[in-house]
Amino acid sequence: MHDLPKRILLEDEALRDGLQIEKRLFSVAEKLQFIKGLEACGVRRIQVGSFVHPKWVPQMANTDDVFHALERQPDVTYTALILNMKGLERALRCNVSHLSMSISASETHSQKNTQRSIAQSLVEIRGMIEGGVASGIAIRAGIQSALGCGYEGAISPDVVCDIATLYDSLGVDEINLADSAGLGNPRSVFELVSRVRRTVSDRVRLSLHLHDTRGLGLANMVAGLQAGVVTLDTSLGGLGGCPFIPGATGNIATEDAVYALDEMGVETGIDWHGLIDLTRQMETMLGRKLPGRMAHLAVPKAA
Amino acid sequence: MHDLPKRILLEDEALRDGLQIEKRLFSVAEKLQFIKGLEACGVRRIQVGSFVHPKWVPQMANTDDVFHALERQPDVTYTALILNMKGLERALRCNVSHLSMSISASETHSQKNTQRSIAQSLVEIRGMIEGGVASGIAIRAGIQSALGCGYEGAISPDVVCDIATLYDSLGVDEINLADSAGLGNPRSVFELVSRVRRTVSDRVRLSLHLHDTRGLGLANMVAGLQAGVVTLDTSLGGLGGCPFIPGATGNIATEDAVYALDEMGVETGIDWHGLIDLTRQMETMLGRKLPGRMAHLAVPKAA
Repeated sequence: MHDLPKRILLEDEALRDGLQIEKRLFSVAEKLQFIKGLEACGVRRIQVGSFVHPKWVPQMANTDDVFHALERQPDVTYTALILNMKGLERALRCNVSHLSMSISASETHSQKNTQRSIAQSLVEIRGMIEGGVASGIAIRAGIQSALGCGYEGAISPDVVCDIATLYDSLGVDEINLADSAGLGNPRSVFELVSRVRRTVSDRVRLSLHLHDTRGLGLANMVAGLQAGVVTLDTSLGGLGGCPFIPGATGNIATEDAVYALDEMGVETGIDWHGLIDLTRQMETMLGRKLPGRMAHLAVPKAA
Repeated sequence: MHDLPKRILLEDEALRDGLQIEKRLFSVAEKLQFIKGLEACGVRRIQVGSFVHPKWVPQMANTDDVFHALERQPDVTYTALILNMKGLERALRCNVSHLSMSISASETHSQKNTQRSIAQSLVEIRGMIEGGVASGIAIRAGIQSALGCGYEGAISPDVVCDIATLYDSLGVDEINLADSAGLGNPRSVFELVSRVRRTVSDRVRLSLHLHDTRGLGLANMVAGLQAGVVTLDTSLGGLGGCPFIPGATGNIATEDAVYALDEMGVETGIDWHGLIDLTRQMETMLGRKLPGRMAHLAVPKAA
């Protein structure tokens, strides 16, 4: 199998994309415990939380406190999601060095999720990117529903490329293509990533955010890596989903992705055995089994 | 994404590889109902059962009766698994036109599963293939643990190619590479299939039997198709597993595979919507949820 990169970066999003839909609220101490656990396994980018209104997402209300209490390791990037300029201001007060923000490539998804059109979202995110870049923050700008929309179906790659081109011109560090509804397939992932790769500057990293709704998460990961992706969003245990997208399930499980990448000779610097223990801790705290596979095998790997 | 075939054949194995480990025994009428259901959805090869000793696998004791009661459709292949010459004799009495048989590429797996060495198994299967070919039966010869063994770990591709070469020389119609323990990954599947494809005659079809133990089933399917596989084993709902291999789970779900293939433009002639109904019937009869994804989505596909 050709074209697989030698090494990629994984961003674990369990504490944000995962916990944001859980009923159980995690304390600052509990979140710090998982951050330490992820660091100990070798995870080098951790999405700590989001700077959003606590009324809408109470699970993320302590994000500022987590950042203030964090013992930052020099080789780990602690990132967060913001939705607007207020979030950017909070992130700046927390000395965050890396931020994610995104808009949807689907008009319907955009309206349902944010009560804004794509055009309005573009105006807003432009200001956020410019503000972040001016403050020296590495910006990752995302495109939700890039591989299909639960409401609209197919999404034009032209729209995705237009948004990517704007992001590139604004100086973002990374462009994230999100399969929010899990509607991508290996062919569409390969084609879209290849096209975006040809469209934007070489300096821009491409990353993928893949929901495993139809079981194609790992297949899509491989196709993305073959097409030029160098960063991948995953979630401990496969924790997560999206409350706004019918039937959407979580990201690919970090431990499953690392196991598969290890076996294919793609380095991540992460020890999946340790992640299994961490997933089991998360399952104990949530009182249910998570969708990831590796944590549930009697014999995860052969002799 | 390059190298995907335009059309492939799926063999549904739920009635054999699936039901053989279920406590609930399925009657002839119940099996016929599922066969009719699969036919109606467009499945064109169905593994009806196995001709094995009823003491060891009571779930398959009525295989002869199912074959006798079957209303055979001209465009459907009804196949079965045999383990020895006695099975071949029973299959001949049932007018079976297509048969599967296999040995393991792992010495330990072979001993544990059949109390025979690989060498002894080769002698036995040689007689079975010759007997089948002489009787005009299309033979599919399989190699279990081809992509790794739950006991031994890595399996030498040399051993797999040696067995494949013998099969080819005996005139088999198809060679099946089985990832019995779900230890394959896209890179190893691509490399092994490519190598076997270069090793055996062009007239031999290559097929894959992929257990989804570590969530890589569909990713491995795509890699196999890119390397020359034209036939794929699947199982309705993902029903199945292997009682002899710790942690092994079932085949990739037929409906999940067909959905993914449809989306990538690879034709199967199968309607996955119909399979979802059939999976739900199977779940009702077994009283539990099966691992396949598509049957459990509120909205299986976008508008």
